[in-house]
Amino acid sequence: MVAPAIRVAPNAAKRATSLLSAIQFGHPPTCPCHSNPSYHDARQPGQMANALRRHMSTPMDLSLQKEYAFEMSASSIRFGLGVTKEVGMDLSNMKARRVCIVTDPNVEKLDAMNHVRENLAREGIEYTVYNQVRTEPKDSSVKDAIAFAKNYEPDAFVALGGGSVMDTAKLMNLYTVYRDADFLDFVNSPVGKGLPVAQKLLPLIAIPTTAGTGSETSGTAIFDLVSKRAKTGVAHRNLKPTLGICDPLNTRTMPSAVHAASGLDVLCHSLESWTAIPYDQRMPRPQNPINRPAYQGANPISDIFSLHSLRSTVKYLTRAVKDPEDFEAQQQMLLASTLAGIGFGNAGVHLCHGMSYPISGQNPGYQHAGYNVDSPIIPHGVSVAVTAPSVFRFTAASNPERHLIAAEAFGVDIANVKKESAGEVLGEAIRKFLLELGDQPKGLKDLGFKHSDIDNLVEGTIPQKRVLMLAPQLDRELEGEKAQLAKIFEDSM
Amino acid sequence: MVAPAIRVAPNAAKRATSLLSAIQFGHPPTCPCHSNPSYHDARQPGQMANALRRHMSTPMDLSLQKEYAFEMSASSIRFGLGVTKEVGMDLSNMKARRVCIVTDPNVEKLDAMNHVRENLAREGIEYTVYNQVRTEPKDSSVKDAIAFAKNYEPDAFVALGGGSVMDTAKLMNLYTVYRDADFLDFVNSPVGKGLPVAQKLLPLIAIPTTAGTGSETSGTAIFDLVSKRAKTGVAHRNLKPTLGICDPLNTRTMPSAVHAASGLDVLCHSLESWTAIPYDQRMPRPQNPINRPAYQGANPISDIFSLHSLRSTVKYLTRAVKDPEDFEAQQQMLLASTLAGIGFGNAGVHLCHGMSYPISGQNPGYQHAGYNVDSPIIPHGVSVAVTAPSVFRFTAASNPERHLIAAEAFGVDIANVKKESAGEVLGEAIRKFLLELGDQPKGLKDLGFKHSDIDNLVEGTIPQKRVLMLAPQLDRELEGEKAQLAKIFEDSM
Repeated sequence: MVAPAIRVAPNAAKRATSLLSAIQFGHPPTCPCHSNPSYHDARQPGQMANALRRHMSTPMDLSLQKEYAFEMSASSIRFGLGVTKEVGMDLSNMKARRVCIVTDPNVEKLDAMNHVRENLAREGIEYTVYNQVRTEPKDSSVKDAIAFAKNYEPDAFVALGGGSVMDTAKLMNLYTVYRDADFLDFVNSPVGKGLPVAQKLLPLIAIPTTAGTGSETSGTAIFDLVSKRAKTGVAHRNLKPTLGICDPLNTRTMPSAVHAASGLDVLCHSLESWTAIPYDQRMPRPQNPINRPAYQGANPISDIFSLHSLRSTVKYLTRAVKDPEDFEAQQQMLLASTLAGIGFGNAGVHLCHGMSYPISGQNPGYQHAGYNVDSPIIPHGVSVAVTAPSVFRFTAASNPERHLIAAEAFGVDIANVKKESAGEVLGEAIRKFLLELGDQPKGLKDLGFKHSDIDNLVEGTIPQKRVLMLAPQLDRELEGEKAQLAKIFEDSM
Repeated sequence: MVAPAIRVAPNAAKRATSLLSAIQFGHPPTCPCHSNPSYHDARQPGQMANALRRHMSTPMDLSLQKEYAFEMSASSIRFGLGVTKEVGMDLSNMKARRVCIVTDPNVEKLDAMNHVRENLAREGIEYTVYNQVRTEPKDSSVKDAIAFAKNYEPDAFVALGGGSVMDTAKLMNLYTVYRDADFLDFVNSPVGKGLPVAQKLLPLIAIPTTAGTGSETSGTAIFDLVSKRAKTGVAHRNLKPTLGICDPLNTRTMPSAVHAASGLDVLCHSLESWTAIPYDQRMPRPQNPINRPAYQGANPISDIFSLHSLRSTVKYLTRAVKDPEDFEAQQQMLLASTLAGIGFGNAGVHLCHGMSYPISGQNPGYQHAGYNVDSPIIPHGVSVAVTAPSVFRFTAASNPERHLIAAEAFGVDIANVKKESAGEVLGEAIRKFLLELGDQPKGLKDLGFKHSDIDNLVEGTIPQKRVLMLAPQLDRELEGEKAQLAKIFEDSM
């Protein structure tokens, strides 16, 4: 029997165990505790604890240490057909009496919104609706939303919509509780101060209407900081919603093109978190657990979610896109999106996402078919997937086994594939998948980019430190990094 | 490629989708909303929502409805070698100033306890230690612990130990917050009132020192209610710890026999939650989401955890037991135990656990090798595993595919196995696994039970409604149920 889930475990196990062996057998290069090899005289199990106790009382510079632990955290998730109608009772159970419903002008018109209103009314809960969430939020739109929430002083939030709505609602919650905080206090460094979210926030129930973002499970909220021309955000596990309500009735309203684009986001969440650097290679080790980032690198628990959602997406996305009546595929994609959210919410994403921000931000005028908006748009999922074949050709050398397992998830027979070909094979599998999905740009040229745009795309990627730090194979020297990014953009043309 | 994780999905998907098809195509027998077939005129996707909206405004007797949703909820889990030493900072971050540490007299002597003390002292946190937790808690021991906590009035709890310690700490937390509640208010019905835990409890950090219970992830707390001669407890997702700190250093102190017994608990958690009835076959549908039980039946998210931990346990348990120096296997078992905890914490267990309570409670005098206690003991893991071969022979007909996938996890080549043989094949795989593990009773006879004890064992199993309701194939009529249980006990002799 060849069971992928088992076959994968050894990688994870190997990483976890390398720490233990480092202490026990004294390999200085991977030492998790300090860099003084003279401590490594512990050969007996009993001595290992002694050695570690000594470490605990020895002051050491943690900023020079690699990470040694990971934390798995996710919102509670409720899944079921029609389960949106429980939201009123949930809010009552949470003792909410004054709720701010967050949505956007399109979602506001859907049945789901009527259900939410009806439910809150039935429970006698006072509420207001903020319907001005901007798709792809900017700092200005987020600040407007925060001002609205501060003024209303709710005791709970409901977010009904896609990633933009859920992310905006998280920020409304954060700055309503931290009323006097500066907007940049919690924004990811180096753009903001990156402070941890230490205070308990208000209850937030997130109800996704797309199957892509996974935002209902995670503590991440993304927006454009216009003055710095950077896509950034706030990411802390304490920002996560209290509960995600995943109701397949709510994603039925997506047009095919939105199914496709949001599904491609799920695909890249899965692939990127699965191939991100291992958590125990991340530096520095946090001095306090509250500073351990949500984006920690691949770890044995995120691996389970990432690989599972990758396989589901390969299996169901094309069906969900091609056949609007295929409810099974649509439900499976909502589930995959949530599972991928738990995976990347605890492991992170890397190059596809880091490079997608300048791609959508510097859009030369591309208008994606099937999106009825009045200005040019490269949907987020399209902008992450367009570089994916090149990205995984680039990262494969870091861990060919994982890239081959990913290729296998696309149906490739990897029995006779050499490790050196892992990148080629996975890149080609992704390319074919995008082709079969249909209506996708074949590369950056199809989006209107020219070779002369590459320098600007690279410059726009560099500030994405939070995700770039999780990219395997990436040069840690700026010039080397730029050259590598330019090459990946070039290969994606 | 044949990927078990994918192959399993269709079962889950089929269940989830059956609801949708029921609404759309109108199959009254599986109708999720009501039993009036005249509503089922909806043939078009647009009408589905209309049909459902109508349902929402139609009063219906939910107690006659099957479940239609599931909820996944788990403590945050931090995993790493030596990570116990972060507990002081965690408590500081939670603003705890007065902490009750809960443990037992054996664990109190371990290094782990020194680390916890040292850490709290370093953060200047006032604390007290309750070290009188009883292994296999009784209501009287739990009440003593609660009285201690009420008197100390802590603002947070730390539980350091195995399942008994963590479960006792959960109950101390519950009844410290609900100071005036009657002890039976939250105890599972029909023994107690089974009230939901609606109030927010105090922060509780659980640090397991065994790899078995998974209690660090879940909202379940088990004890003996002596007057009723019933093993019962409190189970609600809001009872779950705030954080589980899984430190492989803390499970290194287990003797081989404890590794084995606690690992068998993980094995049965995985197998039972994987084979439990599907969540959408459970009745009644809760009237309020707060009444949705933690033990919901198998669902697409618990499935991922259950199958993964089953495979890990098969792979690593024997190694962890046979070689005390095999740190990799020990770490993997701690991880498997936590993952199985998330699985069964949201799906439940069934016959092995339900039948284990009278087995350990009516122990004729068996003293398990390697357990240095002064009275006879059948360790929990041993008491659940001893019936496992017979249990899964009995349940296999409910879902032969799942039982075959479980057999495959044990390394059985299932390519040419017929569905009808699924139970035989899985039962035999478990029997061989127990034999290879070593030092395990081959059946109830080895524990000292006689055929004449079976009636009493059956009588002791019947009150375990909460888990029996999740057992597939079990007759819902009392006499039929008794006969079936007697047969399984008989087969386990």
